[in-house]
Amino acid sequence: MKTTTAQPLVISPKDLLAHWQGHRSLTRRVIEAFPEEAFLTYSIGGMRPFSAMTMELLGIAGPGMKEIATGVVSTLNEEAPASLSKADVLALWDEATTHINTYWEQVKPDQFEEKITLFGQYEGTVCSSIFYFIDNEIHHRGQGYVYLRNLGIEPPAFYER
Amino acid sequence: MKTTTAQPLVISPKDLLAHWQGHRSLTRRVIEAFPEEAFLTYSIGGMRPFSAMTMELLGIAGPGMKEIATGVVSTLNEEAPASLSKADVLALWDEATTHINTYWEQVKPDQFEEKITLFGQYEGTVCSSIFYFIDNEIHHRGQGYVYLRNLGIEPPAFYER
Repeated sequence: MKTTTAQPLVISPKDLLAHWQGHRSLTRRVIEAFPEEAFLTYSIGGMRPFSAMTMELLGIAGPGMKEIATGVVSTLNEEAPASLSKADVLALWDEATTHINTYWEQVKPDQFEEKITLFGQYEGTVCSSIFYFIDNEIHHRGQGYVYLRNLGIEPPAFYER
Repeated sequence: MKTTTAQPLVISPKDLLAHWQGHRSLTRRVIEAFPEEAFLTYSIGGMRPFSAMTMELLGIAGPGMKEIATGVVSTLNEEAPASLSKADVLALWDEATTHINTYWEQVKPDQFEEKITLFGQYEGTVCSSIFYFIDNEIHHRGQGYVYLRNLGIEPPAFYER
């Protein structure tokens, strides 16, 4: 492991966590904006319903941070139990918020540059993995915006976190 | 201006630029994937065509980096000339790629924490502004993916940069 040197700082771990949780707060409001039925089933162009995209995000975020913090490799699980309601998913979302904060605290500053193979299959650094979590969430949430617009529902403002 | 101290490093300026340009390379391939007419006019849910979203990204990225590097405040211009073709937009995209690289070189490491009011109206730091550029691009590109899917076109893989 490298020791921290006086390299230029773009963003601190604390600010990156706040950035991510800001995005997660917006995604939560996008989930809330969906009517129950549309959340579970509505689709455009043969894509997954927003509930399935949300379960992918949940399968990555908390478990990914746990693996980064503990070093214990787990299997990626993006599948939702069929009986989940929107309220169930929102509860899982809030649980993940806490898990992310807890495991983030355990990541050492020097660790962000460390090479890892997340879920036993995705090679990168701790930093690139976390950026992937965030980028993937923004990507799918953007798709949720199109679903909402086509349902005639105004999505929450993108810039409000 | 703060001097650089031995704070924990999440990502270096060099790696953040590579991260952004990786995203921009993917967005370029999404633009290419659109048929000419659909790029300029296709819409779902009353949203803008992907060409208009692309012009927003072009109005922000190069000019934003120029303002950050030079300190000269400019006016935000997200409007496309009506006569633009997909080839024109791709040429502007490549021009912006070069501009971003050039101006990025001029940003001093300590500058990322500096407070700015971008385009005379958006308050944040240099870092938060650049993150906004990237996030906003991912957001709209994700919407472009839905357009492509609904047009029956397979978009480029999200994880390939």
